[in-house]
Amino acid sequence: VSDGAWLTAMLAVEAALARACAAVGLIADEEARAIAAACRRADFDVDELGRAAAEGGNPVIPLVALLRGSLPAPAAGHVHLGATSQDILDTAAVLVTRAAVDVVLQDAERAADAAAALADTHRDTAMIGRTLLQQALPITFGLKAAGWMSAIDDATLRVRASAAELPVALGGPVGTLAGYGGRGLQVRGALARELGLAEPLLSWHTLRAPLAGVAGALALMCGALGKAARDVTLLAQSEVAEVHEGGRPGHGGSSSMAHKRNPVAAVAVVACAQRVPALAATLHATMVAEHERAAGAWHAEWEPLSQLLRLSGSAAAWAAQMLSELVVDGERMGVTLADAVARNELSEDLGETASLIEHALGRHREQREQRERGS
Amino acid sequence: VSDGAWLTAMLAVEAALARACAAVGLIADEEARAIAAACRRADFDVDELGRAAAEGGNPVIPLVALLRGSLPAPAAGHVHLGATSQDILDTAAVLVTRAAVDVVLQDAERAADAAAALADTHRDTAMIGRTLLQQALPITFGLKAAGWMSAIDDATLRVRASAAELPVALGGPVGTLAGYGGRGLQVRGALARELGLAEPLLSWHTLRAPLAGVAGALALMCGALGKAARDVTLLAQSEVAEVHEGGRPGHGGSSSMAHKRNPVAAVAVVACAQRVPALAATLHATMVAEHERAAGAWHAEWEPLSQLLRLSGSAAAWAAQMLSELVVDGERMGVTLADAVARNELSEDLGETASLIEHALGRHREQREQRERGS
Amino acid sequence: VSDGAWLTAMLAVEAALARACAAVGLIADEEARAIAAACRRADFDVDELGRAAAEGGNPVIPLVALLRGSLPAPAAGHVHLGATSQDILDTAAVLVTRAAVDVVLQDAERAADAAAALADTHRDTAMIGRTLLQQALPITFGLKAAGWMSAIDDATLRVRASAAELPVALGGPVGTLAGYGGRGLQVRGALARELGLAEPLLSWHTLRAPLAGVAGALALMCGALGKAARDVTLLAQSEVAEVHEGGRPGHGGSSSMAHKRNPVAAVAVVACAQRVPALAATLHATMVAEHERAAGAWHAEWEPLSQLLRLSGSAAAWAAQMLSELVVDGERMGVTLADAVARNELSEDLGETASLIEHALGRHREQREQRERGS
Amino acid sequence: VSDGAWLTAMLAVEAALARACAAVGLIADEEARAIAAACRRADFDVDELGRAAAEGGNPVIPLVALLRGSLPAPAAGHVHLGATSQDILDTAAVLVTRAAVDVVLQDAERAADAAAALADTHRDTAMIGRTLLQQALPITFGLKAAGWMSAIDDATLRVRASAAELPVALGGPVGTLAGYGGRGLQVRGALARELGLAEPLLSWHTLRAPLAGVAGALALMCGALGKAARDVTLLAQSEVAEVHEGGRPGHGGSSSMAHKRNPVAAVAVVACAQRVPALAATLHATMVAEHERAAGAWHAEWEPLSQLLRLSGSAAAWAAQMLSELVVDGERMGVTLADAVARNELSEDLGETASLIEHALGRHREQREQRERGS
Repeated sequence: VSDGAWLTAMLAVEAALARACAAVGLIADEEARAIAAACRRADFDVDELGRAAAEGGNPVIPLVALLRGSLPAPAAGHVHLGATSQDILDTAAVLVTRAAVDVVLQDAERAADAAAALADTHRDTAMIGRTLLQQALPITFGLKAAGWMSAIDDATLRVRASAAELPVALGGPVGTLAGYGGRGLQVRGALARELGLAEPLLSWHTLRAPLAGVAGALALMCGALGKAARDVTLLAQSEVAEVHEGGRPGHGGSSSMAHKRNPVAAVAVVACAQRVPALAATLHATMVAEHERAAGAWHAEWEPLSQLLRLSGSAAAWAAQMLSELVVDGERMGVTLADAVARNELSEDLGETASLIEHALGRHREQREQRERGS
Repeated sequence: VSDGAWLTAMLAVEAALARACAAVGLIADEEARAIAAACRRADFDVDELGRAAAEGGNPVIPLVALLRGSLPAPAAGHVHLGATSQDILDTAAVLVTRAAVDVVLQDAERAADAAAALADTHRDTAMIGRTLLQQALPITFGLKAAGWMSAIDDATLRVRASAAELPVALGGPVGTLAGYGGRGLQVRGALARELGLAEPLLSWHTLRAPLAGVAGALALMCGALGKAARDVTLLAQSEVAEVHEGGRPGHGGSSSMAHKRNPVAAVAVVACAQRVPALAATLHATMVAEHERAAGAWHAEWEPLSQLLRLSGSAAAWAAQMLSELVVDGERMGVTLADAVARNELSEDLGETASLIEHALGRHREQREQRERGS
Repeated sequence: VSDGAWLTAMLAVEAALARACAAVGLIADEEARAIAAACRRADFDVDELGRAAAEGGNPVIPLVALLRGSLPAPAAGHVHLGATSQDILDTAAVLVTRAAVDVVLQDAERAADAAAALADTHRDTAMIGRTLLQQALPITFGLKAAGWMSAIDDATLRVRASAAELPVALGGPVGTLAGYGGRGLQVRGALARELGLAEPLLSWHTLRAPLAGVAGALALMCGALGKAARDVTLLAQSEVAEVHEGGRPGHGGSSSMAHKRNPVAAVAVVACAQRVPALAATLHATMVAEHERAAGAWHAEWEPLSQLLRLSGSAAAWAAQMLSELVVDGERMGVTLADAVARNELSEDLGETASLIEHALGRHREQREQRERGS
Repeated sequence: VSDGAWLTAMLAVEAALARACAAVGLIADEEARAIAAACRRADFDVDELGRAAAEGGNPVIPLVALLRGSLPAPAAGHVHLGATSQDILDTAAVLVTRAAVDVVLQDAERAADAAAALADTHRDTAMIGRTLLQQALPITFGLKAAGWMSAIDDATLRVRASAAELPVALGGPVGTLAGYGGRGLQVRGALARELGLAEPLLSWHTLRAPLAGVAGALALMCGALGKAARDVTLLAQSEVAEVHEGGRPGHGGSSSMAHKRNPVAAVAVVACAQRVPALAATLHATMVAEHERAAGAWHAEWEPLSQLLRLSGSAAAWAAQMLSELVVDGERMGVTLADAVARNELSEDLGETASLIEHALGRHREQREQRERGS
């Protein structure tokens, strides 16, 4: 989600647009090839483009000028054919989002697999359950881990579904496809196929549910990851000490206290999860967009979207590390539980934890198999 | 979503729980009938319950005490069997949400139908398209209305889907179903059937995606409604005057300026849409919940959820009124367009607006038919 | 901050406006008295006004109609003289806010006093300090309590200052004071004196810093209260058990677990603190208001402001109870500290905690004395 | 607010800490000089530090290791004396914030001066005032510009005041100043003097009002700037055309529509203003911090703070450009007003706009003089 990734994506869209125009006969194949070649070899300075972008309000304007400058006529004149800046930027946003989501999902699935392994291993590891941060009644650590797993699994489904629906953007300045001599819908279809994206019903320059929907799904995922991480920070407290983060020596060190072993990964996940809801709110709020192009709301989307993707990626990667390397002290759990049971004369009944874990693991395995078949 | 609606829902859950326990043989049928009757005739004072709730932290504790007090043994002892307060409150939240969403969806669908009628009527009503609040190139009003319709349609699908997934909550104090002597999964299944709700994989006391998911979907809906309303406020400006809100005399009057005709419905929708993203963010943030019951995050959900539902309902109802009664001045649109075309030597090409509208209306009709078949 | 409080405040503003107009000679004294009497005896139905408000977009329009209907000419015609709805509603909002803030501050000051007493009593009660939820190095409980106190003290100063700056609103429909025949500034001054409010430089119908500033100050206060409450929930954990909430028998009871003693007050404060930042964000966002009256942003302020005030009041009251009744187990703190020191070979150096506490208590006493002198 | 600026600030804090320790006699002057020299010549790779930071959870840990590695004993051992990572990072955050706020304020004051010039020039330029986006009654453009000016002026005062209160952070690992052998308060005082910062009452590792207060003030400023920009976008609409953005040829160009002149600066300000409230909310929410160092909330502050500062700076710079170069079409205003007056039989009374503008300009001049005397 770096500036460079956005630039690469914009160039990919301009190249694909040229190929799509050629595919429906609007420009010659050799022009499309020349434009695509110019996009490939383009070596523009991201910072300079950023400055030029300020004048016109977006980076596509100077980008197109540079591309045209690097090509002979008539190819030069056929760069960006019929498109508007937002077509390119929105489609680039979709490409960047899709690529970032792929990485996020891989890490989230690793995290869910790690939680599944914990649930499987610890299905009979009894511990005290806690409500309102007070010891309550017995559960198993497997049940807790199955909850983490199941919440992450659900979230990955939603993120995957919302990313899969992301459509190509092509409408021209006001969304009418007026620049294509009646072949605009064909060009849009060809562009979608070129880039492997869905086709929208209408131009979505100011109908922003596709990106806001991904933002909401990522917020759900970060909530699920944050829940697991919050539990780990609490279980890793010195006074509780039922888990600690594994990992290399040095992990979790302190600049001033040699004895400490901080739950660094869990803290990082919690920090990401604390920032995501506000960014998703920004993307929900910017849906209220004026007429055929928003006067501010669209520009306000770019960075929050990038940050959401980056924070989700960071949260998923840290969560995968946290859960894969988690060291569980089943013995300590047992001692604490026995003590709580004795002190409060609690029932030791574990209810139907075994069945609950089994069902949840079954669903996890199904979901993984479907995913593997799908890919 | 009033306090009374929450109370009614909590009583409905306690009654259904008793029936579910009877269905699996844990309590006698007559006890279940007695408990259900007590729930029906319960005439508790909402404010008093609120005060009592403060002591224990939630309203279920005093509610159960009152119910038990109104029943003879052994039924008294079988009220709330095996459940924890959060089971009752979460299931009540689901019932309240489902009922509120039904109303929201009806109004949103009326709004979409009204937008569809505008798109249909005005598919050839040419007007100037506007980008960054500047006159740009020609569109039709039908294309704009089709965009509103399509965005609302998409949002209703998401809201409907997220509400349909809402599961029953039953897990007991720490989610193990320990209070049912091995028949907890059966009770949970029976309770789900009693209430027409989905069954969850695990207890979701601290896995909050179901409600946060509805919140995200409602935020998308309010964004879509807000976009239409923002456009109406802009088109209704005195200097633009391409639409105005219809309705009874007195609608949109001013306390100090007799000549004014304020776009009251559109302003109300915009105001709702401005408040919703922050409330959805609160529900995303409270997903980070501690252990088996959150120390604050759960309590922070109740009012934002109610407010989200109420604001969504208000936005949908106002949007339906706004779009149903919208007065469109096609002549004025034509004059403004002709002037813009002449002044800026614009192309009058409307591109493929006709096909775009046709496709969008086709999808709208399909969605409506599926809905009607489904219900 | 109930609907009734808003109605009372609106009537108080209309009455004061009449007196102000009389004071500068625009209307007769007896008319002002008649209007004020009509406002006092007004017994309007809040719900009915709410419904009528929907037609015109705000409740002042029907309110003025009802007042005029209850008076003979010429007084009837001099109700609401020169004012616009927003003048009345904004000034009412200021009155409601000021009254609510008074209550909030009293409770927040009780909370700070209670924290000061804890800091004073426990200045030498050594305990383990904790970073990233890990045992770190020794502190005293007095230092921790002094931190809570100091943060609440700072916040009360900010809230008090922002509320004291709240200005009267009077500008007429577009803020020019055009309805007063050249005596508008005099009327505004008289109105400010009548209500004990500051005078603004300009009409602030769409310059919303006054209310947004209070919202930001309340968010700081709730952050400070939430920090103390979060610490209490953590210290009250069964495994830590260094504090617990006192209070009457029954406080913190559980519907399903008789042995539990939940930190109900702390949980309530945390829940309030989790909701406030999003509401403050709404009030910051609605500052972007159109022209001379906003098309939605203004309407979006009312409920979030009421909710902010109510949540702040709730958080302050619960925090005062939590801190006043907090039971501190100094012995347990000592045992845990000794154990941590021994296990990790920690220094027992308490640094300059005594001086830090002394300075902080000194500032607290100064602030209290200034407040008492001021009132 | 770049990563480099943060690194520079952290090194400045470590150098100042060494000098402060020398000033109170804890280390030798030559050691302090050696450490300061090492900080000056340090040429660490920001990205590498970022990676190393991940292991320990913050960048100070590897930074101190590198500094120690570049120095001989005993200076090496006296780097970071008695401090904890958060002392360094928080003080660095304060330095970065103070420097960024200086730039923000300069641009905001330029914006206010430009608005003042508009108010002065156009105090008699009559135009139609607009409420709910409907033509209402006459105002002057000077009154509108005076409102922009006054709102920005108020906000600069708040931002300046909140930045001036920013304290140095020094407390050691748990805030007790335990590492200084009883001279910790002296070291803290010397450090504050070295860096020109305020001294706090207590260690504020988990008492976060100082930074959250700046965030709130910046949100008020961006709200004020956003209001002006929103008005400009509306006044610049093709159908209104009462102002347009000036500036170099090419400013506001479109990639697809040669005739367009987009209000690029205003749109940029609006976009910044839309993102700021959510970021401020994150900084309010992270005030709820655990014990002596937060497990996540602290880490969640860094980027939102940087982004808030950058967005505020961007908004202020764009607003200054927008207002300095604004082209006002007084003739068009007059024509539109005359037309509205005639059509709706409006009063042409401008009320007390002249006095209102005069008072506001007087206050602006006073504030500027105080500022100039102060600096």
